[in-house]
Amino acid sequence: MFSFEVAARSGAARAGLLATPHGRIETPAFMPVGTAGAVKAVTRAQLEEIGAQIVLANTYHLMLRPGDALVAEMGGLHGFTGWPGPFLTDSGGYQVFSLARLRTIDEDGVSFQSHLDGSPYRLTPERSMEVQTNLGADIVMAFDECPPATATREEVAAATERTTRWARRSREAHRRPDQWLFGIVQGGTELDLRERSAAEVTALGFPGHAIGGLAVGETKDDTWRVVGHVAPMLPEDKPRYLMGVGTPEDILDGVARGIDLFDFVLPTRNARNGQLFTSQGRLSIRNARFRADPLPPDPDCACYTCRTASRAYLRHLHLAGEMTAATLMTLHNLAFYLDTLRRVRQNILLGRFEEFRRGMLRALAASEAEAEGDA
Amino acid sequence: MFSFEVAARSGAARAGLLATPHGRIETPAFMPVGTAGAVKAVTRAQLEEIGAQIVLANTYHLMLRPGDALVAEMGGLHGFTGWPGPFLTDSGGYQVFSLARLRTIDEDGVSFQSHLDGSPYRLTPERSMEVQTNLGADIVMAFDECPPATATREEVAAATERTTRWARRSREAHRRPDQWLFGIVQGGTELDLRERSAAEVTALGFPGHAIGGLAVGETKDDTWRVVGHVAPMLPEDKPRYLMGVGTPEDILDGVARGIDLFDFVLPTRNARNGQLFTSQGRLSIRNARFRADPLPPDPDCACYTCRTASRAYLRHLHLAGEMTAATLMTLHNLAFYLDTLRRVRQNILLGRFEEFRRGMLRALAASEAEAEGDA
Repeated sequence: MFSFEVAARSGAARAGLLATPHGRIETPAFMPVGTAGAVKAVTRAQLEEIGAQIVLANTYHLMLRPGDALVAEMGGLHGFTGWPGPFLTDSGGYQVFSLARLRTIDEDGVSFQSHLDGSPYRLTPERSMEVQTNLGADIVMAFDECPPATATREEVAAATERTTRWARRSREAHRRPDQWLFGIVQGGTELDLRERSAAEVTALGFPGHAIGGLAVGETKDDTWRVVGHVAPMLPEDKPRYLMGVGTPEDILDGVARGIDLFDFVLPTRNARNGQLFTSQGRLSIRNARFRADPLPPDPDCACYTCRTASRAYLRHLHLAGEMTAATLMTLHNLAFYLDTLRRVRQNILLGRFEEFRRGMLRALAASEAEAEGDA
Repeated sequence: MFSFEVAARSGAARAGLLATPHGRIETPAFMPVGTAGAVKAVTRAQLEEIGAQIVLANTYHLMLRPGDALVAEMGGLHGFTGWPGPFLTDSGGYQVFSLARLRTIDEDGVSFQSHLDGSPYRLTPERSMEVQTNLGADIVMAFDECPPATATREEVAAATERTTRWARRSREAHRRPDQWLFGIVQGGTELDLRERSAAEVTALGFPGHAIGGLAVGETKDDTWRVVGHVAPMLPEDKPRYLMGVGTPEDILDGVARGIDLFDFVLPTRNARNGQLFTSQGRLSIRNARFRADPLPPDPDCACYTCRTASRAYLRHLHLAGEMTAATLMTLHNLAFYLDTLRRVRQNILLGRFEEFRRGMLRALAASEAEAEGDA
């Protein structure tokens, strides 16, 4: 039902194939974020058209609304949303620590109030597994504690040790053979804590592993120092997922360190704010210089938006507050991410990923400089 | 380049074919409203998929933002938006009288302030024609004065006489042979004023006519009394357009009186507010009874939304404030309207429109009663 195979390597970068009950995922892969069971502003037909192979949904949001029991009653995320491909759900931990109100952590779990209406909830490793069982994603995540970048070494150490204990309880509470449960490595920016976490979590025999607790406010240097140290400690024959990362540049850097899976709200959220990712760099569609620009967002892109809409039209729709602007720009940004990952994979298969990465980083950096002049 | 042909009659109802430079429109037809150059919350591919044959765009909104000069520079509405089919633009008059601030009317035209930022504008018949020339729609409307339902008979009479004078000036200012200019009949609910307006406006030789100044607050009885009186006074061989009407019931009643073209924001606006139009009546997706309802919005509908989404899922997305809810419900509501018009046309061609109309009104009335119990 599940398998993961590394088909080719180019340096530390890997091109793989991850098989799930709802379809195959070519890795490295980017997972569009469908927080509440839909990727914001697009339909699933549009997601299929741009070639999305897996969608991430948020346990925290769905347990609050509409509730995981209802989703289970409607046939899980697949039955409820109609998305035919694989889903991944996070454990809820990250959102509890970043969104929820009045949270109190104890050894057993976390109590918190909904950010929607203040009503009380509790998540434990067992409850997170129950919710994720109800949601029915193909890949589910162990419940972890994700300390902020401002935490002291002692706090990070305690959270990391607890994450191991919670990983064990998650594994014990996990029941469905049609779900793969991934473990999460924590440890902040402390390499020794990361080492210990990686050793303990991988020892539990998960079929895949995530690096959590990054992109939470630390410097980029710290992010890559940790990823570069931890990734090689994760089993070669199992998928590696860098949670909540990142920009196109970050994804190139993550792939270079052997990461297989990524997710981030950036392409979808920024689309709604009028920022487009292109092969020539980012552009802010509000900028006056696009007022009468007949070019598509990215002349090198073949997505629906680039085939049919000019920058001038998108700028108008965005400034007029038309939802269609969010739809068209979300489609393009996701298409750009997915297309970038396809090109990444091709170049790994061809054994020239590092060359590709450098070329693309150069192009993006040049345009970043140009974009600075925008504001 | 243009032609209009009545292919069949069933009572006063007509099935026709309206040819324009950008394609044919089977009448009776409903025109989705694309206020700012996009039908809210959907893409043009989605509009094409549901079989929309013409889109209405608003002169007032577009002259304010992004400005008609820019639209002209980008190739008119067709070049700017990419919609390949026919467009109709209104004259701007109705929005000036319903949306704009601090308007002052004189014989020459109307001065007003933008509802967006208060900046001053002026519309005259000549300027309305210039704006509509710049926008480049296939069908354009004469500039008219649309008095509110609260206007006195004297006010309505003055506005009606002015509308004739403005119709003459609109015709004289109209230049493009690739645009059909329609005249508008005013006269409020005063049948003698309507008669005079119809006689004067049709005498100007327009290729099509609209009944304006209805659905502005008068009773339904008044609406249909006027339409029933005016429609037969409009030339048989030219298209008749009832502006800003209406509900599915209204459209059946309008077709029964010989109307060929309709437009209304209802299906798109109500979709965003969570109201769905179905063959079993309207339903408010917020209603708790749809919480776990696995049925599509309309089990008799074959649109994308009905093929892929349950009421439970739509309710969740709507309550969660997801834009995707607006997209999916807009698609369904427009598909329902367009499908209704296709069935209307079929039944006219089969010579049994009145039977069809009564059956559909009965079904809609029964479900209205049920819907009352909803709240």
